[in-house]
Amino acid sequence: MGGVFGAYAPKGRHVLEDVYLGLYALQHRGQESAGVAWVQDASPRASIETLKGIGLLHNAINQKDLLAIEANIGIGQVRYASQGSSQIRNAQPIGARYARGLVAIAHDGAFSNATDLFDRLQSRGAIFQTQCDTEAILHLMAQQPDKEPLDALVCALAQLRGGYSLAVLLEGQLVAARDPWGFRPLVLGRRDDVIYVASESCALDLVGADFLRDVEPGEVLVIDDAGIESLRVPVKAERLYHCAFEYIYTARPDSIITGVSVYQARKNLGRQLAQHHECPQADFAIGMPDSGTLAALGYSEESQLPFELAMVRNRYVGRTFIQPTDRVRDLGVRIKLNPNAAVFDGKRVIVVDDSIVRGTTARRAVRMIRDCNTAAVHLRIASPPVRYPCCYGIDTPSSEELA
Amino acid sequence: MGGVFGAYAPKGRHVLEDVYLGLYALQHRGQESAGVAWVQDASPRASIETLKGIGLLHNAINQKDLLAIEANIGIGQVRYASQGSSQIRNAQPIGARYARGLVAIAHDGAFSNATDLFDRLQSRGAIFQTQCDTEAILHLMAQQPDKEPLDALVCALAQLRGGYSLAVLLEGQLVAARDPWGFRPLVLGRRDDVIYVASESCALDLVGADFLRDVEPGEVLVIDDAGIESLRVPVKAERLYHCAFEYIYTARPDSIITGVSVYQARKNLGRQLAQHHECPQADFAIGMPDSGTLAALGYSEESQLPFELAMVRNRYVGRTFIQPTDRVRDLGVRIKLNPNAAVFDGKRVIVVDDSIVRGTTARRAVRMIRDCNTAAVHLRIASPPVRYPCCYGIDTPSSEELA
Amino acid sequence: MGGVFGAYAPKGRHVLEDVYLGLYALQHRGQESAGVAWVQDASPRASIETLKGIGLLHNAINQKDLLAIEANIGIGQVRYASQGSSQIRNAQPIGARYARGLVAIAHDGAFSNATDLFDRLQSRGAIFQTQCDTEAILHLMAQQPDKEPLDALVCALAQLRGGYSLAVLLEGQLVAARDPWGFRPLVLGRRDDVIYVASESCALDLVGADFLRDVEPGEVLVIDDAGIESLRVPVKAERLYHCAFEYIYTARPDSIITGVSVYQARKNLGRQLAQHHECPQADFAIGMPDSGTLAALGYSEESQLPFELAMVRNRYVGRTFIQPTDRVRDLGVRIKLNPNAAVFDGKRVIVVDDSIVRGTTARRAVRMIRDCNTAAVHLRIASPPVRYPCCYGIDTPSSEELA
Amino acid sequence: MGGVFGAYAPKGRHVLEDVYLGLYALQHRGQESAGVAWVQDASPRASIETLKGIGLLHNAINQKDLLAIEANIGIGQVRYASQGSSQIRNAQPIGARYARGLVAIAHDGAFSNATDLFDRLQSRGAIFQTQCDTEAILHLMAQQPDKEPLDALVCALAQLRGGYSLAVLLEGQLVAARDPWGFRPLVLGRRDDVIYVASESCALDLVGADFLRDVEPGEVLVIDDAGIESLRVPVKAERLYHCAFEYIYTARPDSIITGVSVYQARKNLGRQLAQHHECPQADFAIGMPDSGTLAALGYSEESQLPFELAMVRNRYVGRTFIQPTDRVRDLGVRIKLNPNAAVFDGKRVIVVDDSIVRGTTARRAVRMIRDCNTAAVHLRIASPPVRYPCCYGIDTPSSEELA
Repeated sequence: MGGVFGAYAPKGRHVLEDVYLGLYALQHRGQESAGVAWVQDASPRASIETLKGIGLLHNAINQKDLLAIEANIGIGQVRYASQGSSQIRNAQPIGARYARGLVAIAHDGAFSNATDLFDRLQSRGAIFQTQCDTEAILHLMAQQPDKEPLDALVCALAQLRGGYSLAVLLEGQLVAARDPWGFRPLVLGRRDDVIYVASESCALDLVGADFLRDVEPGEVLVIDDAGIESLRVPVKAERLYHCAFEYIYTARPDSIITGVSVYQARKNLGRQLAQHHECPQADFAIGMPDSGTLAALGYSEESQLPFELAMVRNRYVGRTFIQPTDRVRDLGVRIKLNPNAAVFDGKRVIVVDDSIVRGTTARRAVRMIRDCNTAAVHLRIASPPVRYPCCYGIDTPSSEELA
Repeated sequence: MGGVFGAYAPKGRHVLEDVYLGLYALQHRGQESAGVAWVQDASPRASIETLKGIGLLHNAINQKDLLAIEANIGIGQVRYASQGSSQIRNAQPIGARYARGLVAIAHDGAFSNATDLFDRLQSRGAIFQTQCDTEAILHLMAQQPDKEPLDALVCALAQLRGGYSLAVLLEGQLVAARDPWGFRPLVLGRRDDVIYVASESCALDLVGADFLRDVEPGEVLVIDDAGIESLRVPVKAERLYHCAFEYIYTARPDSIITGVSVYQARKNLGRQLAQHHECPQADFAIGMPDSGTLAALGYSEESQLPFELAMVRNRYVGRTFIQPTDRVRDLGVRIKLNPNAAVFDGKRVIVVDDSIVRGTTARRAVRMIRDCNTAAVHLRIASPPVRYPCCYGIDTPSSEELA
Repeated sequence: MGGVFGAYAPKGRHVLEDVYLGLYALQHRGQESAGVAWVQDASPRASIETLKGIGLLHNAINQKDLLAIEANIGIGQVRYASQGSSQIRNAQPIGARYARGLVAIAHDGAFSNATDLFDRLQSRGAIFQTQCDTEAILHLMAQQPDKEPLDALVCALAQLRGGYSLAVLLEGQLVAARDPWGFRPLVLGRRDDVIYVASESCALDLVGADFLRDVEPGEVLVIDDAGIESLRVPVKAERLYHCAFEYIYTARPDSIITGVSVYQARKNLGRQLAQHHECPQADFAIGMPDSGTLAALGYSEESQLPFELAMVRNRYVGRTFIQPTDRVRDLGVRIKLNPNAAVFDGKRVIVVDDSIVRGTTARRAVRMIRDCNTAAVHLRIASPPVRYPCCYGIDTPSSEELA
Repeated sequence: MGGVFGAYAPKGRHVLEDVYLGLYALQHRGQESAGVAWVQDASPRASIETLKGIGLLHNAINQKDLLAIEANIGIGQVRYASQGSSQIRNAQPIGARYARGLVAIAHDGAFSNATDLFDRLQSRGAIFQTQCDTEAILHLMAQQPDKEPLDALVCALAQLRGGYSLAVLLEGQLVAARDPWGFRPLVLGRRDDVIYVASESCALDLVGADFLRDVEPGEVLVIDDAGIESLRVPVKAERLYHCAFEYIYTARPDSIITGVSVYQARKNLGRQLAQHHECPQADFAIGMPDSGTLAALGYSEESQLPFELAMVRNRYVGRTFIQPTDRVRDLGVRIKLNPNAAVFDGKRVIVVDDSIVRGTTARRAVRMIRDCNTAAVHLRIASPPVRYPCCYGIDTPSSEELA
């Protein structure tokens, strides 16, 4: 999981501030590292340059330093560490020079055939300096030195199975690509003569761009002086596999994924929950913040139960990093969530969560709510059980750990 | 404005981690600086030691360093820069040695007679090294070297006009004090044999302490081996002046201020707004995030209009600091807030905000909502107009800037 | 011990870069903290502003931030932690507002009557926020609110016993003062229409200023638009007490202290050592780096023994801070010094050190040299035994620890 | 140019602290970046881990973090940016996984056939993520997946022309290698059962290890549980090309390079200068600090002229980084060097420098000395003219810029 962003402007205009702002809007998709890449022409020969770092965007990248750089094409990524640890070497974009020039890739997703790819590439002499699947794309391109970079990229993509939404920087071109199964979202936007690609439409909103359309599953968009050209990855998907977690958990509610409003999707999950399962007697419904809130709102509308916002999520969780000392472990989920005892006192409450993965947080939260002198607590889950780990880039535990 | 926290444990137990966690729960009351103070016995003579810094708690104070320190009494503060700039010299607590020993003070509030106090103290030889009103309390104590520290403190407080909620560290004692007018909140809690004072009850929740009671207006609590003793500031308040902004904006909704649930208070403001002003024809109501959300929920309940969460607040605002470049100024409030266009499309909407100070944000937000193809936008404000600047510690603009 | 620097330019010129450079040249006098102070006029009322930090100058102060500040008068200090610990609160200059305006002080030295002063000031209501003697000067001034700041300063100085070389910032004036006994050095310089005061003449060299003269013991120089006025501290010194350590150890060899070249002084110590004590049979002489090197050169010249530079001092000691782990303690002085075994092999050597305080380093260094297969090692000390601790600001151990 | 260090201990002992100390002793060989690599066994599969950073060792690597890591084999490098810029991506060691396992390389030197190698490797599909020649060694190994890692490494080395002293980490082995021409130094040492390789013997001194011998030109040392095995790079060098700059400038004087004491070599250069060129009438000789000092000492001995240390080098240059503002550029070399005017006054002086590259510093220093009222200044250079740029890893300017 992660978020990618790319921007292309005519020569003479600079886009790295927009890449920064785009990543800022996508921060919810990854907090482990952030990075930006561009082509620098100044030196004796052009080079791919990057600014990358660990943690939230403003810690990872010095905004002042970035704004001082002039580049008309740029890509960036925020990373959620599904593969590898959160070390700086795994921060993206990954840039390289190969026989046909420069290339940098920002990637959201994971390959189901990664092990095969690595073995095959290594047997042909590839070295891997990161722990990201993404590096394989660079090697697949490099092992076709007879092909133009764009052709080599498309041929490389044809060998991938699994999820990838990509922003790719070639010399003079921004390329966006989405896997044929449509696992991960990717959208296209425009503001005046600047073209953007982004994991979610909320990033287009922030930079003031208009949403043009989704990048289609299996589509490769080539953006350069000649405009926007659409190619296809020569792989036939038997069906689409949109990632349900985008709607349930990952995406921001103000994003539109494959034509569906995430906000409405979440409320609908809550509505259907109320329709298909009998509602217990209760005084009100609440959501588990933040991801269960909209499902709870839908549930409340359908069931005619009052809606309350009675669990408070500490706004600074994630920014004010807390050392996991014994005392902190003891306090557990209370570091993040606090039930508003005054609202719960003596009441029967329905708690709606978006999904259950390990179940640890839900269990602890319900216990805290019970301790608020509630008359009854009912937990309802808005999405079907998670049965198997995900191999397409969502960070899920092994089967044994699933609740 | 700011947040204070204090902890007292029997000798041999260490409280600085709890002070850190307490400040973490109070972070919403101040993001300019944070600091912790304790008495260190080790050196030839005891000394007041502090760890302070600029910004959010985790940037201001190295948690590991703090946890390594053994102290059974500690106080801390998070600061919202109402007076002075956000320089490190203005970070609290302020500690000093004077004729009768050591004292450190963490303060939320501001004095209406500050100028008089400064003049009087300076004419008697006081020097001011910070720009905080708080420093005056130390000088008032020091100019009574014949009195015991506790007596000197109470006499000092008697000379203050305006708002102060204090956590004070004396040698061997934790003292909590609240001004006779009750401008600012202060509560008392206990977990086993550890006593806590905090600006808000949500900080007691986080450290797992039970709420005992409010510190009363004009009360001075002396906490030491002998237990908790209650004294009075010898000043008669003609009436109480609880700060309305605590209920409207400042406090966390899961806090209880002077016996009133902030959550219920905010919902009630919305309910009364719906009762007392005719509701326009509309499809739904939303709140201006985050402070207007609960008023909108109350408004929705009273008016029978659906409630929606259709304005998205970037969760990372405040953490990912954005340089105020031309591009960013141009984007304005969009950096923080994004209207969910899919929800607004073709609808009539009522937008509820908690209060209007300058009116800039509300104006820009309404404009963004209008741009979402809405049929009608009605702005409703849950609290009465702000007519005058505040001299008791809330950071308000001058009269001319008020909307 | 420490280093002070001050600069005064006509209005419209900015001196803080020169203060930074001056401190850079004085870095050898203190590495614990560094700070700069100036008067800022912009705000509703003028204020003393400071940038201070822990460690070497470039860590303590962001040079870019400093250069962006416009001020025509500035003072600075580098601090060697003789009193108090190296906490940020003890970093100088110390600035304050008092009844008669603004004052900031940078101080090199220590008062022998500090305890008396503190007691007296505290009994009159003074509070001490730092652990620096310097704070007493501010209180002495503040307790004479009827006097003009300059008069109050001179009266304050009259009450001090011990060492002080000061750069003081008053509103519109730079004041330099040296104690009547002349413990610490202080010099006056000029470049065009900018006037400088500095602990050592090497700082004048760096900013390209001409050395004008020493500030005399007991002299107070007032530098403002009217030029340079010379006053006297109304205290009669029975004799001068120039600090011998300035010549032996503290000062840079390219400085001239009270008309004497430190370089020549150190060589002369070595010469006299060779004259007054019979030279043993030896192949060459070396100095203990860096402070014993010049004495060894003088010794070599007088004794006609060859001079070698056979002990290497790691150039990065002090910058690359090494954690004091067991392994590091075990390696001891070797972290700093390495004997050049190839030079010592089979030779008889005279090792000259500047002085012996605890004797630990010398003992370990001699042992390391012996291990280099030397035929004989003779240790010679260029200065008389240190018999007593220093109470005038040099960081010496207690009598028991002296070798 | 750079410095490398490696350590091998039996399983159960940890060497990363020694690697840190070794790099500390080699800091003079490179200040642009520093890094350490080791094999981590913990995760599902073993991985190469690194800690790297920009600047001096203590800024680049958190010593506490490093000491918490348990590894019995480790390598490290300090880097002087001869190739590429000082970006973090160019920091060494470079680690990778390839078909036959894990490898990490720390490298001092540069290849004269780098362009050919890059072209050849890229045409076979290699991608380059750094700007370091070193990366080519990894690719050369990876393109021989049929060979054991050690064999692949030796075959890779056989294809290199130019300078390389390497510390290589294979799984379970530490390998040291030196190019057949002997451009760069590399030594072997031992302390108890820990084996070390280092660029210079002074690093062995610091960790308390005994110098065993030089790694010979063209030798490959394989260090593992079975002891130390010596292999040869199968390349015949027609002659040796020891880098003269090691003796003149690069190495520490207490190091022994290829059996020659750097200290004696530098003094001999000065002696020969005095023998072969008539000495002008002069009062004394000085060296240009620090690299010309020993040559001046030799010159002084041979010429019977007194030796003085009359140029002071600011000890904090390089640590206290000074922003290159107009004022600083104007002050020029004075930021680093200050002539001791008291010593030069009225005297005739011979200034010995180790070498002339661009000549800028020497020219400015001589001008400063002239300004000290000297009667005559003679500049003498201890090494022959530098005629051509270096392509073996020393950072020299282009031919036009050479003096």
